[in-house]
Amino acid sequence: MSSEKSANIDHASLQARLDVSSFHRWLGLHLISASEREIVIKMPEREDIYSVPDPQTVHGGILASLIDLAGLYALLAAGVPARATADLRVDYHRPAAPGTLRVTGRVIKPGRRICCAEAQVHNTEGVLLASGRGTYIPV
Amino acid sequence: MSSEKSANIDHASLQARLDVSSFHRWLGLHLISASEREIVIKMPEREDIYSVPDPQTVHGGILASLIDLAGLYALLAAGVPARATADLRVDYHRPAAPGTLRVTGRVIKPGRRICCAEAQVHNTEGVLLASGRGTYIPV
Amino acid sequence: MSSEKSANIDHASLQARLDVSSFHRWLGLHLISASEREIVIKMPEREDIYSVPDPQTVHGGILASLIDLAGLYALLAAGVPARATADLRVDYHRPAAPGTLRVTGRVIKPGRRICCAEAQVHNTEGVLLASGRGTYIPV
Amino acid sequence: MSSEKSANIDHASLQARLDVSSFHRWLGLHLISASEREIVIKMPEREDIYSVPDPQTVHGGILASLIDLAGLYALLAAGVPARATADLRVDYHRPAAPGTLRVTGRVIKPGRRICCAEAQVHNTEGVLLASGRGTYIPV
Repeated sequence: MSSEKSANIDHASLQARLDVSSFHRWLGLHLISASEREIVIKMPEREDIYSVPDPQTVHGGILASLIDLAGLYALLAAGVPARATADLRVDYHRPAAPGTLRVTGRVIKPGRRICCAEAQVHNTEGVLLASGRGTYIPV
Repeated sequence: MSSEKSANIDHASLQARLDVSSFHRWLGLHLISASEREIVIKMPEREDIYSVPDPQTVHGGILASLIDLAGLYALLAAGVPARATADLRVDYHRPAAPGTLRVTGRVIKPGRRICCAEAQVHNTEGVLLASGRGTYIPV
Repeated sequence: MSSEKSANIDHASLQARLDVSSFHRWLGLHLISASEREIVIKMPEREDIYSVPDPQTVHGGILASLIDLAGLYALLAAGVPARATADLRVDYHRPAAPGTLRVTGRVIKPGRRICCAEAQVHNTEGVLLASGRGTYIPV
Repeated sequence: MSSEKSANIDHASLQARLDVSSFHRWLGLHLISASEREIVIKMPEREDIYSVPDPQTVHGGILASLIDLAGLYALLAAGVPARATADLRVDYHRPAAPGTLRVTGRVIKPGRRICCAEAQVHNTEGVLLASGRGTYIPV
């Protein structure tokens, strides 16, 4: 577990902080690893997240949610006290079929006025489904 | 109901098309009005959509979802056969407290290769909470 | 001239402030009108701004520049002390043929931490060529 | 020169293609290296690119231009026949003082309908000044 690599990071408290959000609990987010360099979060397959039924495709808003939160928690994992998303930009690369999703977040630039982070969503085969960036306002 | 203004638009079929998505059904989306000029969709208050509990604030991913889908359905309401979101950009203007949300979508530019639409999320007092744009790939 | 509508705005000082930038002088920017509601700036045709020669098409970076600066000066015209662009997003709607360009900027949301503005670039026939948004950091 | 690594890429023809644009010639762009993996382009210091005079800071539109074109040429260097920018998103990380700028572009996802690429602008000390993404329409 890479979460032991940094004094800023504590795996259990990051998972607890994720779980503070009722939407995160609904998504069933599970923290896989966290370090100053990157954070990895897993989301299980579930009903109620699809945009079309045939073939079932995960809604763009769900993928946007993963990118938004992975950027924020990448900052927190790196010890940057980010608080709220200022703006979010998502590119959709391929339709996301049902199955576990994995989102990886990385800090691009911490800042006193604005912080920038990026994230990628992959399926379990490692195929890139969506990626993007957010800017976040520090505390 | 402005949905009678255009041959391209049918209120009941747009609501039915919204309801095809399991995520839209979960969000409880209700089509208020639809015309070639704009579409308005309402989302009721519900548990499981918050990012922080105190004070309860709607998750940025939920607001991003509303902007994504309002852009797409604004295109459909205008008779533009858009199919999938290519990219999405969201600005968060104010924390969204619990309560009904109202999203308004408008076409910026239909296109043969790419279509562009914008959307605003307001609360019931008419305060702007988030706004943004998406690009969509036509059928 | 709409610039007389607001105590915050002075046409001559806004033009002078535009001219402080060597890039703005090179672009030949001319302030058409400025109010709390919107700002309009004109850019003449010139060599050295094209991306392809046949048919000559204005470079996307030039259109991005117009959107960036129109957003910032819309904030200044509205009395919002914005200082630097935090991020910029531009949609390209149609190829921009040689000719005078006109950019219109409007405030979306002033803010203590971050300000948001939008802008549209039209040609002299009023055809929308590009549009977008920026976020700006206040002084 | 990494340009010899791929049959898709020819250093001299990429530089020639860059020079087709009058704006690129004005910017004085110089192709440093090009491969399927990444493209690096250098831009010399010059007057007429600043947003403020004291301290001199490169205009955000110039940095946006570099990101736009580096994304496009990263696709071309990778053998992806991209033609026009659909949209562009730029994050400004630090003020860019006078001096040579270096922009690095990389393909995120080629596509039949839309292609995505990213780029970073650094100064000669390797400090990240701006970064972003564009989507591009294939021929």
